[in-house]
Amino acid sequence: MPGRGGALSYAACVERPTLKDVAKAAGVHPGTASRALNPLLRGRISAATTARVETAARDLGYVVDPVGRSLRSRRSGIVGVLVPDLTNPFYPPVLRGIEDELRAHGLEGLIATTDNDVRREAELIEVLKARRCDGYVLTTAVRRDPAVEALIGGPEPVVLVNRLARVEAPSVVSDDAFGIAQAVRHLRELGHAAIAHVTGPPRFSVTVEREAAYRAALRAEGLPHRRELVVRATDYTAAAGEVACARLLAEQRVTAVLAGNDMIAIGCYAALEAAGLRCPDDVSVVGVNDMPLAGWLRPPLTTVAVPQHELGTQAARLLVAHLRDGAAAVRRVDLPTRLVVRGSTGPAARDHH
Amino acid sequence: MPGRGGALSYAACVERPTLKDVAKAAGVHPGTASRALNPLLRGRISAATTARVETAARDLGYVVDPVGRSLRSRRSGIVGVLVPDLTNPFYPPVLRGIEDELRAHGLEGLIATTDNDVRREAELIEVLKARRCDGYVLTTAVRRDPAVEALIGGPEPVVLVNRLARVEAPSVVSDDAFGIAQAVRHLRELGHAAIAHVTGPPRFSVTVEREAAYRAALRAEGLPHRRELVVRATDYTAAAGEVACARLLAEQRVTAVLAGNDMIAIGCYAALEAAGLRCPDDVSVVGVNDMPLAGWLRPPLTTVAVPQHELGTQAARLLVAHLRDGAAAVRRVDLPTRLVVRGSTGPAARDHH
Repeated sequence: MPGRGGALSYAACVERPTLKDVAKAAGVHPGTASRALNPLLRGRISAATTARVETAARDLGYVVDPVGRSLRSRRSGIVGVLVPDLTNPFYPPVLRGIEDELRAHGLEGLIATTDNDVRREAELIEVLKARRCDGYVLTTAVRRDPAVEALIGGPEPVVLVNRLARVEAPSVVSDDAFGIAQAVRHLRELGHAAIAHVTGPPRFSVTVEREAAYRAALRAEGLPHRRELVVRATDYTAAAGEVACARLLAEQRVTAVLAGNDMIAIGCYAALEAAGLRCPDDVSVVGVNDMPLAGWLRPPLTTVAVPQHELGTQAARLLVAHLRDGAAAVRRVDLPTRLVVRGSTGPAARDHH
Repeated sequence: MPGRGGALSYAACVERPTLKDVAKAAGVHPGTASRALNPLLRGRISAATTARVETAARDLGYVVDPVGRSLRSRRSGIVGVLVPDLTNPFYPPVLRGIEDELRAHGLEGLIATTDNDVRREAELIEVLKARRCDGYVLTTAVRRDPAVEALIGGPEPVVLVNRLARVEAPSVVSDDAFGIAQAVRHLRELGHAAIAHVTGPPRFSVTVEREAAYRAALRAEGLPHRRELVVRATDYTAAAGEVACARLLAEQRVTAVLAGNDMIAIGCYAALEAAGLRCPDDVSVVGVNDMPLAGWLRPPLTTVAVPQHELGTQAARLLVAHLRDGAAAVRRVDLPTRLVVRGSTGPAARDHH
C-alpha cells in the first residue's frame, strides 16, 4: 500500500521537538511543561509559567500527542456522549456546546444515538466503555434506566443534562418551571382560562417536571387544574403531538395549548389546521425549548427558551472539573429559561367552536 | 479516589475469557478467531467458521477490546467525521447513517463541526489526525480547501459526502440534477414560466451543481434562462435565504422559486410573507433535501428528496471497504433523488403583483 508507506517515511523524516526541548526552552522541569500543556491540569501551574511554556511550545512547533498522553496517563481523552435523537433540533446546539468545551480541554466527545431505546442505550454504553471513555455526558431522558444507573455507580464520572436519574449524579438542568410559569401568566393575561397541556410520555423525566410546573403555574395564576386538559403524546415528536392534540380537540374546548416541547407544538399546529382552527386566532400554542427553527415556523412559535448550547457547555465543564479534581465540587447547575413571545399566542377567542 | 480504586479491584476480580479460550472452544486457530471477530476482516473467513467463533465468544462471554486491538493493529478504530453545522437539519440523518454503519464494523466516528470555516476546518483536521483516525468522512462543502486537499493526499482514506474536491477522492453524491429536473417540470406543468433560483454562495460545490442542474432543466423544458432570476444567498440558512429572496422580489416578477436547499426555502416563505405574497397562491416554492421537518412546515414544503441517511451509510461503507482492502474499488456512488410534492407548489398566478 504505497499511501501508508509514504506516511511512515513522512513521519520519519520530520524531526519532531520533544517535551524536553520545550521544557528546556522555557526553563522549567519537563513535568511542569507537561502539566502546563495539559488543559486538564493547567489550573495547577501559575499563569506566568503556563504562558512561558506555551510560547516555547509554539516557537518550537511542539504538538501534544493525545494518544501518547493517554498511554502514559491511562486516560483515553475520549468522553462518551449519549444523545437520544439528533433529528430533534433541540440536541444539535447542546452537542455543539459539549463539543467545543471538551475540545478546549483537549478532550473529544464520542457521540452515540440511543433512540430513547433503553436496550440500545445499554448496548451503546458497553461500546463506549470498551473505548475506555474517561467520562460520560448523558442527554438521554428515560427515567428508569438500569444501564445508566449502573454507569453512574461505576468508576468514571457521569454528568446528566436536563434529566434526573434515581441515582444521584452531577447534572445540568434548565429551570423549565420558571419559563412555564411565565408562559401560563402570558396566556392568562391574554384572557385564556382553558389552557391544555399536550405533553410527552411519562417515562421521560422532563414530562413529569414540566407537567408539575404547568400545574403549579395554573395554581399561581388562580386557574383551575382540569385533569382532562392534560394529554400525553406517545413521544416528543411532531407526529405524536399531532395525534395527541387531535384527541384533545375532539373532546375538549380549549383556547390555548402548552406543548411539552417545540416538536409537539408543531404537531399541534397540524392538528389545529386539520380541525379547521387557526393559530393564534382560535387557539394559542406555546412550546418549550426554542429550537433553532422555532422562529421560522408559521406562525412563529412562542416558546420557553431553554439555553441549549449553554446546557452542553456547562455539562462538559462539570465533567472536566470532575476529571481534573477526581470528584465533583458542584452537584447541580441550574440554567435560567425565559419566555420568547412570537406569533403563536394571541387574545383568547370568545367562542371558537 | 475510592471510585477508581473500586474499578481496579472490580476488573482484577473478574476472570476474563481470552481469545485463545474462544479459539479453543470453536476449534480454530486463534488468528482465525481474531479475524472472525473483527468486522473489518470477517469477509475473509467462511460464514460457518464465523458463526462458530461468534457462538463460542457469546457462550464464554468474550468481549473484544477495541483499545487492545488498536494497539496490536496500529489502528485506532476511530473515523474522523467533519460536518459543517449540526443545526442544519440535513446533517443529523447523514450522521446517523455514518454512525450506524461504522459501528456495525466495530468503528466509531469522532464528529467535529467546522461551521464551513476553512480555518476552523484545518485546525479540526489537525485535532483528528492527532487522534490517529483510521480514515475520514467529510460532509463539508467548501470547494477550494487546501486542508482537505492535503488530507486527501495523505495516507488515510478519505470519503466525501455530497461534495466534490479538486483532488479526486471516493465520494457519495446524490443525483440532485435528476430531482431538480423533476421539480422544474412540475412547475412548468403548473404553468410557471418565471422560475427563479435562490441559491447559496458559489464557494460551495452544491451551489455550482444545483445551479447547472436548474439551467439544464429550464433548457429541457423549453423555458428561457434569465440570469437576473438567479440570486445568491450568503449562506445556506433561512436568514440568508430571506434576505436574498426579498432582493429578488423587490426587483423581479416571479411565480415560482427553486430554493438551493430547504433552509433557504424557509427564508423564502418569510420573504414572501413580508412582501404580502402567499405561498403557493402567488408564488410557489420548491426546496432541496427534504429535511426531517419539511413536511411539517406551513405550507408543507415541496422539495427534492435527497436520501440523507443513505448518503451516510454509503459513505461509511466506502470507507470500511477502503480500510479493509487498502484501496477503494468504488470511486463514486450516485444516489437517486426524487421530487416530493407537498403544499408549497400550485398553479401559476396570472398576475400577482
